[in-house]
Order: sequence, then structure tokens, then C-alpha cells
Amino acid sequence: MIIELISIGDELLKGNVVNTNATFLSRQLMFEGYAVSRQTTLPDERESLAKGFRETLQRADLVIATGGLGPTLDDRTREIAAALFHSDFHFDQALADDIKRRFGDRNVSIENQAKIPSRAKILQNRIGTAPGLLFSEEGKALILLPGVPREMEPMFLEQVQPWIQKQWPLKAKKESVQLYFCLIHESLLDPHLRELTEHYSSVEAGIYPAHGTLTVALQSSDKSQLEAFQKELISRFSNYHYFSKSGKIEEALLDCFIKHKKTLAFAESCTGGMLSMHVTSVPGASDYFLGSFVVYSNTMKQQILGVSKETLDSQGAVSEAAVKEMLDGIFKKTSADFAIAVSGIAGPSGGTEQKPVGTICAAIGERGKAPDAGTFKSFGNRHTITLLTTQWLLGALWRKVEKGIPAFPLDLFRD
Amino acid sequence: MIIELISIGDELLKGNVVNTNATFLSRQLMFEGYAVSRQTTLPDERESLAKGFRETLQRADLVIATGGLGPTLDDRTREIAAALFHSDFHFDQALADDIKRRFGDRNVSIENQAKIPSRAKILQNRIGTAPGLLFSEEGKALILLPGVPREMEPMFLEQVQPWIQKQWPLKAKKESVQLYFCLIHESLLDPHLRELTEHYSSVEAGIYPAHGTLTVALQSSDKSQLEAFQKELISRFSNYHYFSKSGKIEEALLDCFIKHKKTLAFAESCTGGMLSMHVTSVPGASDYFLGSFVVYSNTMKQQILGVSKETLDSQGAVSEAAVKEMLDGIFKKTSADFAIAVSGIAGPSGGTEQKPVGTICAAIGERGKAPDAGTFKSFGNRHTITLLTTQWLLGALWRKVEKGIPAFPLDLFRD
Repeated sequence: MIIELISIGDELLKGNVVNTNATFLSRQLMFEGYAVSRQTTLPDERESLAKGFRETLQRADLVIATGGLGPTLDDRTREIAAALFHSDFHFDQALADDIKRRFGDRNVSIENQAKIPSRAKILQNRIGTAPGLLFSEEGKALILLPGVPREMEPMFLEQVQPWIQKQWPLKAKKESVQLYFCLIHESLLDPHLRELTEHYSSVEAGIYPAHGTLTVALQSSDKSQLEAFQKELISRFSNYHYFSKSGKIEEALLDCFIKHKKTLAFAESCTGGMLSMHVTSVPGASDYFLGSFVVYSNTMKQQILGVSKETLDSQGAVSEAAVKEMLDGIFKKTSADFAIAVSGIAGPSGGTEQKPVGTICAAIGERGKAPDAGTFKSFGNRHTITLLTTQWLLGALWRKVEKGIPAFPLDLFRD
Repeated sequence: MIIELISIGDELLKGNVVNTNATFLSRQLMFEGYAVSRQTTLPDERESLAKGFRETLQRADLVIATGGLGPTLDDRTREIAAALFHSDFHFDQALADDIKRRFGDRNVSIENQAKIPSRAKILQNRIGTAPGLLFSEEGKALILLPGVPREMEPMFLEQVQPWIQKQWPLKAKKESVQLYFCLIHESLLDPHLRELTEHYSSVEAGIYPAHGTLTVALQSSDKSQLEAFQKELISRFSNYHYFSKSGKIEEALLDCFIKHKKTLAFAESCTGGMLSMHVTSVPGASDYFLGSFVVYSNTMKQQILGVSKETLDSQGAVSEAAVKEMLDGIFKKTSADFAIAVSGIAGPSGGTEQKPVGTICAAIGERGKAPDAGTFKSFGNRHTITLLTTQWLLGALWRKVEKGIPAFPLDLFRD
């Protein structure tokens, strides 16, 4: 069975919007054992759209298109799809009533939105106005979904995915599993994956590095091989492997702190609140995370956390001495059991020969114990430097609390 | 002249990676006056790749492909491209020496990377190992770029873009301009854009809403019409329009604070550091931004900022009384001229009938003056609720300082 995706919209081809819809659909389909064989982005223009749809339907059994259904456009997508499936239109009173009930009359072209191709099944849009449409004929299907992610995603999960599973049931569903690792470079994992893939030949493996963490995706129709592969890989890299539903190290950290009944606080300079934002992005963070002192200015480092003027003058804000004093400040001002303090040069300016852009000093410690402190190098632009720093430090903290491994040095995972 | 993009990679079709390369290339080409007419994502598989390349080259004059050049793959892209342009391969000693000089011998398949199709021009990769390749014959061109953004982007900007401009010079280059607005919903701008587009018929206009801000992109080959359109639109929405090179409201805020020689600090609860992270994402933020108290726990709200137990007990942490006390705390603990304090319910749990998920209380004030305080509703999932809150509050602060407009109510821009 061949699946293709179509993304419609000038905003995509002009680079105003990143195509996250294609990513979402590809990922969901893959999780269910289906594969997308091609994705095409087409402009809001009748001829290109019609040509693109025709070609795609010739190659694929199932085509899922997003975008081009909104009331501000001229409904080209819907008309083109209807023509391909030889369908005329009718006015759907129930749909019109529902839209009117939820949105009132203002600003919404109900007339237009409720004009439905007669041969299409309506997919209800419980968030916005434009319904999705499902055309199906002679084993081929074309599904039109709205382009707004928060309308498209529930529509796909609740109505489209079950329909696909019924229409194209998988005979031997491939099991898939995702394993997450922190503080390790892909080049260290790669040879092991190759070796294990040779041994467990039914398993397909892929490495997907993110910033500071990486995902290994395994897929096989042989469940026992998949499990053996997984077990072997985890045992070889147990100091790097973390469990997390979302794949986020922040979630592993939350689980670990809740399990150990410990609390956490930060003092952040160069990360500017990113450490805090990452841990609070996981629901339930308030059960262990107390807060963060974003002491961006040196005055705040002194006034709020009691970093000494001498240290700042003699060694600078980006020094292990300064971050250790910041860490002391956290323990004095809060009741946190664990803390991270970080200061660095995120660039683009502010670098010196001794401390170039990307130089980061950090301290990770437990109340009443000597802290781990270290200096390391992050890289990339301002955002990447901060993001890598954040993810590495969260990984190092998780490993310290969960595995008892000292937080520094971090240099083993340099790119 | 027809331009198409090809993105190569199973990781894209499996949804492991978002396709930011296509966005980057589309945007860059648009800025230079070129338009992308289609983008296709293909798998790492010989037959699909060859078919996709052939079809694309039949439709387009210029095809730019990203990905599929790395040393861990089997170099399928390069071979397929070479076959399409009837090219054999040779070993490029200079390239091999350069890779060896920069990366040493380890881990890099130099033999492979330095095998170059003889009819292709080499595009130097000054970050990584895989060079880009440029095939050009009979008015058609195929350009292969690496898939890693930090290798691809400078290669495109420094080597590919100038080549395209020389090869396909634009006769009447379209001027384009992007205007940025905050605190306004697109449905309020849309009728004005339609009216102005009718009047200035050479101008194409598009609205691209982001979270809490929106971009209006105008394009025309008639410079005077473009300027008149722009001036008229800005004059109608001067209270919403901000200047910013990057389009970020954070950048407008920095310019505004530097101009007025004022400083800023935050107290954040539900935003968890996101306000701070956004303002520090702009280089130079340390010239006006002092820092942020991320007081995620109620204990920290009391201990660090002096919020009273009575207020927290009687009105809750999500109340205008609580955020006003948080604001007072900022002014007591720092020397900031302006401050924002925010507390809310980001969900998914924690909502009540009286204060459902998405309820946000905030105070925005200047030292020594009565603060503006308000309660409003943000929406979406946990991340979107926080992101909208952040962007709206930064917009409201910018408008207060720059235009003297009270920060609340914010309800005018509800979606």
C-alpha cells in the first residue's frame, strides 16, 4: 500500500511557515506501521494543484492533503478533488447549523464552508469551521484536511487514522520502539547499531540526533528479535539511556526527582531561563521544581545570589568560582535539594581569546555536599549554544541523581 | 524560470525531523525575488530517487536538492545525479587533502567523499565533509547540497545564491517588504489588505500569523505602489505595528528600551522562564534586561518576592492581587525601571470552573507608578498557552513603553 502526502500553501513555498503537518502525519502513520513514500508541497494555484493531485493519485493508494480548505481561500482544493472523483456539490444544512451554532454568523462564510462534494464523507472539525473531506473509490482514497495544526491533528487521530486501519489492515504489523540517549555522540552508537543489525537481521535501525539527546528507532515484524536488539543496546549504553514517553530528557528528570522525592532549583545566566522553561514544559513539574533565578546581569548575581564582587572582578562571571557561588546562593535562598548554576558566553559578541564564544561554566550540586563544577564548550549560533548547554546540563543532572555519575567532565560527547 | 526543491531522507518521511531546509531555501529565494513552485520529499531509495529527480528536472529549470550526501549513506543521490547528466567520476586529490587537513583520517570515508562527478562543479563545505555539487547543462541545473542545516545554509548563501543570480538575472526584480504587527487578529487586518490590494493592484499581499504576532508580506515590481501601500497600512494600524529586523517583538522591545535608556526584569510563574528566554534570545539583551525570578512554587513567591500568605490563601497564586505583589517584589529586589509579573494555569491539569486552564493574570508596571493589571484567557495546549502569553505580554509592554498605551485589557485580539 502506497501513501503520499500533499501540503498545500503559498506560505510553505515562500518559507513563511515550517511544514510541521507533514512531520506529524508521517510520524503518526509510522507509529501505526504505515510508511509515507513521498511528500509534495504545492502552491495555491489551480493548475499546479490539479496536476499535482492527478500525478499523486496515479502513484499512491492513499493521498492525504493538508491546507487549502479555509474560508479565505477560493476553495480550489475541494473543487479539484471533487472533479477528480466526478462529484457535484450540495449544501449541507446540518453542517451549516453546526458552524453557526459554534461561531455565530460573523466573519465566517458559512455558505461556502457548508457546500460539500456529494461523493465525499465529511470529517467533522470540532475546533474550527472547515470540515475535512474523504473521497474513496476503487481502492484509492483522497483525504483533505485543514492546514491549521490544532484542527488537523485531532481530526486525523480521531477520524482518519481509524478509517485507514479499517480500510488497510496490516497483516504483519511491524513493532517499533524508540530508545533515547543523552550525553553521547551518534558516532559512538553507530558501529554498535551496524553490528546488531547484522546479527538481528529483521530489525531496521535509525539514529536521529536532536540537540543534546538522540533517538534510536528500531522496527521489526519479529518481536523477539526486536526485544533482544533493544535489550542488548540498552545494556551496552546503560549510562546514557533514559526512559521517557515524550523522548524528552526533562521528562526522565521529572520521573527521577519524583521517585527520589527531591526538589530542584536553578541559577541561570547565559541560558536566560531556558533550563527552567524546559523543565516546566513537562506537566507536573511543579511537584519537584521550585524555580530559577535568571541572574542575567552581574548586579543581580551579587544582589540576589550573593556572588562576591571579588570573584566577578578577578575571575569574571563566566568562571567555575562564580557558578559555585551562584549554586551556594540557590541553597541559601531556597529549600532545593539539588541545583544547577550556569554562566557562559552565548555570543555572537562577548568572546575573548581565553574565553571564546561557546565557553560555558556550570556547577551541579546536592545540598550539603561538594558540588561538581566544570567548564566546557558548546557550539553553533546563540540559540544552539544555549540549547545544547540546557540539554547537556539536564542530562548530566539526571545521570548524577539516577546513576550517581559525576556531572563533569562533559567532553566525551563533543561534536 | 521554474524552481523546485527536493528534500531527501527517510527521517523526513518517518516524521523524525521537521523539514526546515525547505523553509530556509524557499524564504531565501523569495527574498531575492525568485519563487519556488514545488517541493518534494523523497526517500533514501534508489528507484524513487531516480524517478523523482527525472520528473522534477522535466518540469523545472533549477532543482535544488538537500540531503543524501553524507558519508554514512551509500551516496545514491550523487550517483543518480551523475547518471542524469551523463557524468563519470574522478578522485579529487585537493578535496581529499582538505578533508584530511580539517578532520584527520578518523571516522571519515575520505575515499568516498572525494569521488566527484567530473561534470559537476564542487561547492566547498567549510563546516563538514561532504561537498555540494552543481550540475548545469542546456539551461537546466541541478544543485545537490548537504542535509545538515549548518553546512547547507552557508553553502547556499555564499556559493549557490550568487550563481543563481548570475545565471538567471531578474529583469524586473520584485521588491518585497515584511511588516510586523502585535496584539491584533488577522481577521481585523484582512479586509484592509483586500481593499488596499484592489487599489494598488500591482501589490501582492499575504498574512502570516505566528503565535501572538503576525507578518504581512508585500511584494511588487512597482516600488512606489509598494511604498504607498505600506505607508497606508502602517498608518491605519500604527498602534500594532512594530519595526524589527528579525520580525521578533523581542527585538522591537530591545530597541525601545535601549532608546529610552530603561531596564527590565520579570517575575514568572506559569511562563516558567519563557519570557526571559525570549528577551535574551536577542543579542544585546544584557544592555537592558536584568533578569527574571522564575518563582514556580508558592514558597518561592513568598520567600523571594514577598508575596503574602494571605493573598495566596484567599485569592490564589493566579490572581491580580498576587501578580501585583510579585511586581512589587521585583521593584524591591532589583533596580529595574519596568517589570512584568505573570501567573496562570498552563494545564493540562490545575483548572477549576472559576479559573479554567488558560486563565492568566499579569501585571505590567513602571517603578513608582500604579501598575496595569489584568486577567485574560490564553488557549491551546500547555506550550501554546505559555507561548501566546509570552508574546502578548511582550507586545503589551512594548506598546506601553513606546506608545503610552495601557497594557490591559488584552481581549481585543482573541482568536
